[in-house]
Order: sequence, then structure tokens, then C-alpha cells
Amino acid sequence: MPPNINNTTQLAQNSDKMAAPISPEETLARFEELSVLEAEFEDAELELIRKSTALNEPLWKKRAEIVAKIPHFWTLVLEQIPVELETFIQPTDFQLFANSLQTIEVSRFEIDDPKGSPRSFSIKFGFDDNEYFFNKELEKKFWYRKSKDWAGLVSEPVKIVWKKGKDLTEGLTDAAYDLAQAKKTLAKTSGGKSKAKAEASLPEYKTLASKIEDDTEGAPSFFTWFGFVSSYRWISAEESEEADKEEKTRLEKLKRGEKLDDDEDEDDEDDDADYQETEVFPQGDECATLLAEDVWPSALRYFKQAHEADDEELSEIDVDDMDQDDSDGEIDIRGLVSKGRTSSTSPPSKKQRKA
Amino acid sequence: MPPNINNTTQLAQNSDKMAAPISPEETLARFEELSVLEAEFEDAELELIRKSTALNEPLWKKRAEIVAKIPHFWTLVLEQIPVELETFIQPTDFQLFANSLQTIEVSRFEIDDPKGSPRSFSIKFGFDDNEYFFNKELEKKFWYRKSKDWAGLVSEPVKIVWKKGKDLTEGLTDAAYDLAQAKKTLAKTSGGKSKAKAEASLPEYKTLASKIEDDTEGAPSFFTWFGFVSSYRWISAEESEEADKEEKTRLEKLKRGEKLDDDEDEDDEDDDADYQETEVFPQGDECATLLAEDVWPSALRYFKQAHEADDEELSEIDVDDMDQDDSDGEIDIRGLVSKGRTSSTSPPSKKQRKA
Repeated sequence: MPPNINNTTQLAQNSDKMAAPISPEETLARFEELSVLEAEFEDAELELIRKSTALNEPLWKKRAEIVAKIPHFWTLVLEQIPVELETFIQPTDFQLFANSLQTIEVSRFEIDDPKGSPRSFSIKFGFDDNEYFFNKELEKKFWYRKSKDWAGLVSEPVKIVWKKGKDLTEGLTDAAYDLAQAKKTLAKTSGGKSKAKAEASLPEYKTLASKIEDDTEGAPSFFTWFGFVSSYRWISAEESEEADKEEKTRLEKLKRGEKLDDDEDEDDEDDDADYQETEVFPQGDECATLLAEDVWPSALRYFKQAHEADDEELSEIDVDDMDQDDSDGEIDIRGLVSKGRTSSTSPPSKKQRKA
Repeated sequence: MPPNINNTTQLAQNSDKMAAPISPEETLARFEELSVLEAEFEDAELELIRKSTALNEPLWKKRAEIVAKIPHFWTLVLEQIPVELETFIQPTDFQLFANSLQTIEVSRFEIDDPKGSPRSFSIKFGFDDNEYFFNKELEKKFWYRKSKDWAGLVSEPVKIVWKKGKDLTEGLTDAAYDLAQAKKTLAKTSGGKSKAKAEASLPEYKTLASKIEDDTEGAPSFFTWFGFVSSYRWISAEESEEADKEEKTRLEKLKRGEKLDDDEDEDDEDDDADYQETEVFPQGDECATLLAEDVWPSALRYFKQAHEADDEELSEIDVDDMDQDDSDGEIDIRGLVSKGRTSSTSPPSKKQRKA
């Protein structure tokens, strides 16, 4: 959770040959200056996200048109992702992707929304018919929101319509979706005070919490990620707007050199609640960020890597049986997607490069 | 080394329920389209680096003014760097930084140079008097350059004037610097053909190569990095300009749908040379990129992290003796820089935040 520099009232008061010792007052002054500067860096960063989106959007569109003509483009990309992301995707998930993933699309849906954030994004997966679920499209939206003491991505659980006996998440996405719906209904009736307590009393809360507690065996399916809410807690658009306003007021005071009323009315929060008790995919924001900020912009590079690896290993490749589940977590996607390749294809003509 | 998509003449010819098999001709066409698209993505990326530099430069300047008033700012930042970078910095290096590092400054010195690249950067370290070397400033420049089959950062060895018996690199930076000078002299006299062979005959080459071969004990000092040349081989501005021109010609042909003369005159390269035989710091470009693209833009965040950790551990901290060399590679920088802090400082008043 990002700390606020200005909340800090003391800093290393060093004295050595390099610098004279600085007083607590001076220290506080430095932290206040840094706090204002930090906000300016953040504005520059948001401006860059807008610029980047404007520059790249037409290219992503062009890319989508070209890769639609290349079979298994996105599956080959996913084969080359960095290991931090790969740990979130299990062998069965990879098989599902190899069999039916058609498209991936990332968009910054609040880029021009003055009340939203350029940091918000959605990730949309397009699927062909598959044996696991009926959805042709699964879209997960991430809103960048702030509370008084946290800022980050929050999301709503997505309904996956699983085929009978085929739920890779063993009921977790359904239970997460049901709880989110029940919370929405509750929010309409309750005033907002002590909401965490009321939410924890919902039957859907208990169902999900005990499902998570019981579900201790093995790594969860990637599809559990569609049930992710927050690595902290859900934050509504209203709460975020309020926190943003307060932050701006505080910054204006700092800029004018006014004294801050520190830590006012902090007590009205439900800070004894364990928000993570019902989180089905605690690193869901991290996983989403890797997809949106690494896989999506670098897809061509990963595809090339996959193709290079393909060339290099072509003579060695043993086309695996599709149904064979490799239980050590490694799966040969090139094996999965190259079923139709005939061995009469000419050998790689690409020269070996020296490094 | 980045492969060229267009060099590839075959791709997975898949046939499955999703897509009809595609012919080798179609495959080549797709790769050519992607190749053109890749160049457009690269242009967008360069434009973004320019935009980012323009937006952030005044803020970096402001930051430098503020942090000049905070003792040990950069040393505290270096304490929090990611582990990929930390492995390049040894305990003795950290001690040197804690005792005398004053400033770090990154600049994109070719940002407006039509013959240069916005990807080029320099990293300048400012030092106070120290027991190891006489330099007050060590600046390492990295040029983004291209050859026919590689693109990346190259650098020239920097002369560190070590104090007697205090060379942390055991002669490696001196030998790397001497070889670079000898190569420059050679380049003035030779025509350029079979240069690698002539270079390998230089006495400075043999000295450095055998020094590297003999130097097998322990991890090298971070300061060896100042001797880095390239993770591939040195590429001159002229060679890079030539390669860039050829690439542009090739792209223009692709855009017009013309046939490419594949792999013309590739034979005149010294590709049997082992360019890494005299590289003192093989991952020097990676280390530089982490410094310029992670530490530099994120310095405020790392400084805050250091301060947070400081608060949390204040009561536990055992102020280490400065001279004590912690041989397991861990070093308590906060111990090193907080020598002057008195224990009468008020305890941390910052509230614990809940996650």
C-alpha cells in the first residue's frame, strides 16, 4: 500500500561529514515538498498513459487485423510470457487456451473520463466453442480507485457459465459473483455505515469464505481470476471520488504552505474487517497488470520468440498427445497447436545468429 | 538478440477447427505485415520516450534540488532496489555508496539528435571524497546502436583513478580502458576489414582477456560496470547509421510490396570472433537499464520504502559498526547512514495501516 510521505513526522536525522544534521522541522518540510512533487510526477504519468494510448491504439487495431489471420497467435504469445505471470496459469488453462482462445483485447475505457482514471483498463478474451463454458467472451474490468489510505485496481466478479461438471474453479467464480450481487442489493438498502459488518453477515459471504478456506489443494485455475475484486477491498466510484477530492485539497494546502489537520475523522472506517477473507485470487491486480502492461504491448515480441523457439526445436519436437496432462506444470503448447503441421515442411532456413 | 520476423520463411502451418491451414506464401505475407507494423510500434515508442523526457525533466530537476537537502537520499534509494539489480552491487560497493555517494543523474543525451536515439542515456554518479578513487564524478554513457543482426546499448570504458591498493575491480577497469584506447588508435590506421582479428592481436586485448579468465573468485564489484562495452560487441556510430539506413530501405520495399534480396553480403563480417572474451561486465546493459528505467524514475518511491522500513524497524535496529564487513552479502545500509541519529528522537508517530 503506497504510504503518504507527508504523514511522516520524522526522518533519519543524520549527522556526518557529508551533511549537517537536519532538524525535525526541516525534515517535515522536505517531505511536504516531496509530497507535492510526487503529485506532479503522477500527473505526468497519467498524461503519458493518454499519449501512449493515442499513439498505439491505431497500431493495436492493425495488429488485431493481421493476427486474426494467424492461427493460435495469442496461445503462442502466452507460451512466452514471463514466469511471474506463468505461475497464474495452470496446465489445464493452457490447454483450454490452445483449444479455443481466439482474441485478447485490452482497452483503457476511462481514458477520457474526467471522473475516471487513465489507469483503469479492461481485458477481453474471445473464445471459440469449448468443453468448459458457454461464454464466447469474458471481459474483466479494472477500475483504478482510491480510498483514504490505499490506491489501486478493483474489479467486479465476472459470471462464467460453466458447462456441467466442468467448472475449473470448483464453484469459486460462481460464489464470488453471487456475493458481489448480494453486496449490491445490500448497498441499496443500507446507509453505508458499518457496511463491512453487514456484508460479513450475508449468507453469500459465509459460503464464499468457507469455500476459500476449504480450497487448499493445488494452484487455482487462471479462470478464478475472473472472480477477483481487490487486493485490499472493494472501493466504489463515490468513495474514490471523495478520496481524490480530499487529496487535492490537502495538496493545495501544502502548496500554499498551510498547516494540515492531520488524520481527521479516520475512525469511521471498518478497519477491523478482514477484506481478504472472500478474495478468490489475492494477486488478481498483479496478474491483470502483467497482462495489460506486458503481454498486450509486447505480444509481437513474444510471438516472435515462440516462433524462434519453434524453429530451433523443430527437429527435436515430439508432438505431444493433446490429452496427455503434464502434471509437473509444464505444457508443450507448440505441441498442442502444431497438430496439423506435417513433417514434410521444409526445415528452418533461418541462419543461426551469433551472440 | 532481436530476431527479424521477415527473415523467417516458415511458420506453424496449423490446421484445426479454428482456422483453415495457411500456405507458406500467406505465412510470409503475414510476417512481412508484422515487420512493417513492428517498425510503426518502434516509432511510437521513441515518440513516447521523447514525450516522457519532456514531461519529467523539469520534475527531475526539482527533485534533485529537494533531495540535495536530504542526507543519504540516493544511498537509501539503493537500499530498496529490486533484487535483479542488487545482485550487481557488492557489500563493499554499498559501503562506498553509503560513505560518499552524493548524486545520481540520468539524461537522454541524444533525445533531439536525428542521428542518435532517444534510447541512448547517460548515468552520472557524484561522489564526495572517499578512500577508493580520486574521481568526483563518474559518468557512463550508453548509445543505442544497430548492426545488421543486433540492436542494443553499447558503452565506452570509463577511467576510474583508483587510489593505491584500493582498486575494487582488481585492474579490470584499467585494462578495459586501455584496450578501448588501443582499439581507437588501431581504428585510425586500419581500413576496417578483419578488424576483429587485428584487435585480438593487440597486447591490451591479451592482457584483459587473461585477466578476465583468471578472475574467477567471487562476484565482481559494481564498479567493474564502468568498464562495460557491450553484451554483443562494440558498434560505431557509422556502422549503426549504415544499418539503420538499410533497415529503412528494406521497410520501404516491404511497404511497396517489393521483393527483398535476402541476406545479401552477409559474409564480410567477423562473425567467428568471440567478442565477449574481453567484456568485463557481460550484463552491463541490463544493469544500466535497471538504473535508468527503474531506479531513476522510481527513486521517490524507493526512498519512501526505505523510510517506512526505517520507521518499522526503528526500535529493533542495531546500529552496525561501519567497518564491519558483513560477508554474507547483506549489509545494513540504514545502520551505515544512521550513525548520527540519536536515540532521543521521538518514536515513530506514523499510524500502522491495515492492508
